Amino acid sequence: MFRTAGALRCSTKPVTASKRCYATVKNAPAAQKLKINPDRLWTNIHETAKWSEPNATTAAGGLSRLCGTQWDKMARDWFKDQVHSLGAKTYAVNGTGSQFAIFEGENNSLPPIAMGSHLDSVATGGKFDGPLGVLGALEAVRGMKEQGIKTYAPIALINWTNEEGARFFPPLGSSIVYVGEKDVNAAFESQANDGSGETMGAALQAIGYIGDGPNTFKEFPISAHFEIHCEQQTKLEEAGKAVGWVEGWQGIDYYEITLTGVDGHANTYDMKGRRDSLIGASKIMIELQNLALQHDGVTTVTNIKSGPIGACNIQSWTKFQFCVANVDQKKLKAMGEEILIRAEAEAKASGLGYHVEQIIDFPAGKFWPEAIDCVKRACGDRGMGADTWTVHDSSMTTRLCPTGMVFARAKDGVSHNPHEWTSKEDCAESALVLGRAVLNYDQILREKHA
Amino acid sequence: MFRTAGALRCSTKPVTASKRCYATVKNAPAAQKLKINPDRLWTNIHETAKWSEPNATTAAGGLSRLCGTQWDKMARDWFKDQVHSLGAKTYAVNGTGSQFAIFEGENNSLPPIAMGSHLDSVATGGKFDGPLGVLGALEAVRGMKEQGIKTYAPIALINWTNEEGARFFPPLGSSIVYVGEKDVNAAFESQANDGSGETMGAALQAIGYIGDGPNTFKEFPISAHFEIHCEQQTKLEEAGKAVGWVEGWQGIDYYEITLTGVDGHANTYDMKGRRDSLIGASKIMIELQNLALQHDGVTTVTNIKSGPIGACNIQSWTKFQFCVANVDQKKLKAMGEEILIRAEAEAKASGLGYHVEQIIDFPAGKFWPEAIDCVKRACGDRGMGADTWTVHDSSMTTRLCPTGMVFARAKDGVSHNPHEWTSKEDCAESALVLGRAVLNYDQILREKHA
Repeated sequence: MFRTAGALRCSTKPVTASKRCYATVKNAPAAQKLKINPDRLWTNIHETAKWSEPNATTAAGGLSRLCGTQWDKMARDWFKDQVHSLGAKTYAVNGTGSQFAIFEGENNSLPPIAMGSHLDSVATGGKFDGPLGVLGALEAVRGMKEQGIKTYAPIALINWTNEEGARFFPPLGSSIVYVGEKDVNAAFESQANDGSGETMGAALQAIGYIGDGPNTFKEFPISAHFEIHCEQQTKLEEAGKAVGWVEGWQGIDYYEITLTGVDGHANTYDMKGRRDSLIGASKIMIELQNLALQHDGVTTVTNIKSGPIGACNIQSWTKFQFCVANVDQKKLKAMGEEILIRAEAEAKASGLGYHVEQIIDFPAGKFWPEAIDCVKRACGDRGMGADTWTVHDSSMTTRLCPTGMVFARAKDGVSHNPHEWTSKEDCAESALVLGRAVLNYDQILREKHA
Repeated sequence: MFRTAGALRCSTKPVTASKRCYATVKNAPAAQKLKINPDRLWTNIHETAKWSEPNATTAAGGLSRLCGTQWDKMARDWFKDQVHSLGAKTYAVNGTGSQFAIFEGENNSLPPIAMGSHLDSVATGGKFDGPLGVLGALEAVRGMKEQGIKTYAPIALINWTNEEGARFFPPLGSSIVYVGEKDVNAAFESQANDGSGETMGAALQAIGYIGDGPNTFKEFPISAHFEIHCEQQTKLEEAGKAVGWVEGWQGIDYYEITLTGVDGHANTYDMKGRRDSLIGASKIMIELQNLALQHDGVTTVTNIKSGPIGACNIQSWTKFQFCVANVDQKKLKAMGEEILIRAEAEAKASGLGYHVEQIIDFPAGKFWPEAIDCVKRACGDRGMGADTWTVHDSSMTTRLCPTGMVFARAKDGVSHNPHEWTSKEDCAESALVLGRAVLNYDQILREKHA
């Protein structure tokens, strides 16, 4: 994914167009039988949220559980206990800290059907982005056990590490290794965004979460991957739908621009002739906003640093990262090109050195039709189709195996904010859909292999 | 000085208007006798510059000697050795790390006449800003010894700590305590600008430079304070003058603005309705530049931070510090007021919370007439009058005792930049003027007290 734009552009194109579609019209018999416990799931969501850094986000009812912190460890320990008590046949932690639990099926020679998301969060997160995916999956497994549903293929529950890239860059920190786009050692060295020099690997090691479990799809393939996520938009809410089947995702590119000016005294230098990198950066940041509005897309500066430090220095260097997103891949490319032309022109006009690097190239794409169909049937008339505007661990797994996502209705589309909200009923509905989608896919495997 | 604007505005007005002026027309006899060694001073400047962090500034021939670093320690150790070998009667380090060396005069009941500046530098400094003041003072004392000049009052050499505020905020880190505007314990806790949480006191302690020497003017008064500084403007250069007597300084205010928006997902939030603090900050930073140009003044943003950290977050808070400067005190106040009105309006228009704090209020002022006159006579026709556009340790001492400054001609006004330059001849001339100014002032004391 990183600096391998060309390769990526190919691998993200679903390769299923010519494949046989296993979709059937109704839910599989086992899926029809599944029930889950809304109260237990709701209690899990709220009780596990206590493992959160005590700060303003947590005080506001949100979740602040950055990757590799003591709060992350507590949530991970709890997850481990849960899967053991549910009778997981195998449990392992891999070299990027992801937790894998395998529940046996009738035919254990098949790769498991996975349900995964992340228990760690952004610094200013809500209780749902990430945790709902893992806790909903746990609830689905509990429901299967309680209803005596025995799957044909084994089932895997996965708690992926650092999907958000909140504490360490890049995002999708473990699933990117799983699909072979990044080396496990390079992921270990993922740098802290706060410039402290900490690495993801050292932080995970410090909480005891570097293990010898499988790192890649190659060593540990899965038959499919399903994930619940709160919508982060208002399409479901506006349509009055509790759940959704996710059809695809918008394209997202990340760039880093470094502007270089000239050192000088903050008080004694005449304004004319200054080469102040922070003024140049300000102009570019405003251009970024204008461009997003003009192209009906999204741009966000997610990080800025400048120097030299001190109370009396013109800032001779400024570095900032930004993302550019658009549901339309052509528009995304056009936005990217225009931004870079305008940014370079602005830098030149301000007499600044200019360096740009594309650090993520994530083209828009679609999930696998047979996986989408499993989710769609599970939703029934309670659901609708929608796109996600960002990327998830499923955006990685879809490169190698059938992947589908379940949306849970979110209030006002609020996300990465302590006021993020999905009702108890919608959480429960999404977990039921997840479990049913997995059982629908399991039925496909049963019919194919049995 | 900090958050005590009212008190300051009074204390910086020279209180000498009604005092008797001791000025005479010529240089004092001892001043006429003084000679200094240009080669030795030039060698000192270049040899001591080796104590500099190995980085791009140092490689470019500049000086990167932040307060409290190992390089600062080396320069300090050398200074201590120098004053001891010159026969200092007393040597002490105080609670903010400043080094004091006292050389006896004929009447040691008088407070000494001080020469001081700083050996520490900004991160991207030249070899002259700071060091020339201390090394020129050392050279002046050497010249007095070699010419057998015995002063009437004792002489003090001072290496002031953290004048620049480069590593730790605020600037004038030790002289501000000396004049009683800040407590020594509060200065100890001065925070690192890089947000690392380091304090000035702990850094000085780590290099062995916290002592029990005098912290305040009250415990250790001086009769006067003189300081050499490179000009940092081009007035002397344009007039073909090697040196200058500094008449006053421009007013400088520092503000810190904090903008508060709303947390949200960087990719999934619609551009409309966002409350992105970094966009608001960009607009204000551009306004700051416009205002400086409109008011013939100076504004510089010297620091910016935003959060939350992470690759997928709209920046919900941004904090930046900036200075506003103007040679005209009325214009400075008008600039400050207009900036705050525009910044608040911009924040409001962007839907952002807005908080402003004035962290430094430093009104324009004039040095003491009798001290200026001592420098003026020492300059003779090689010099001219000029103003400094920034503040120095002398801007602190002038609040309590006669203070004068010597300017050395600087190439192109370059400052806080490795290419800062003053020629060997001009360095030597400035040291000679410093020594002569001190001896002129000593003559005033002799005539008054003998």
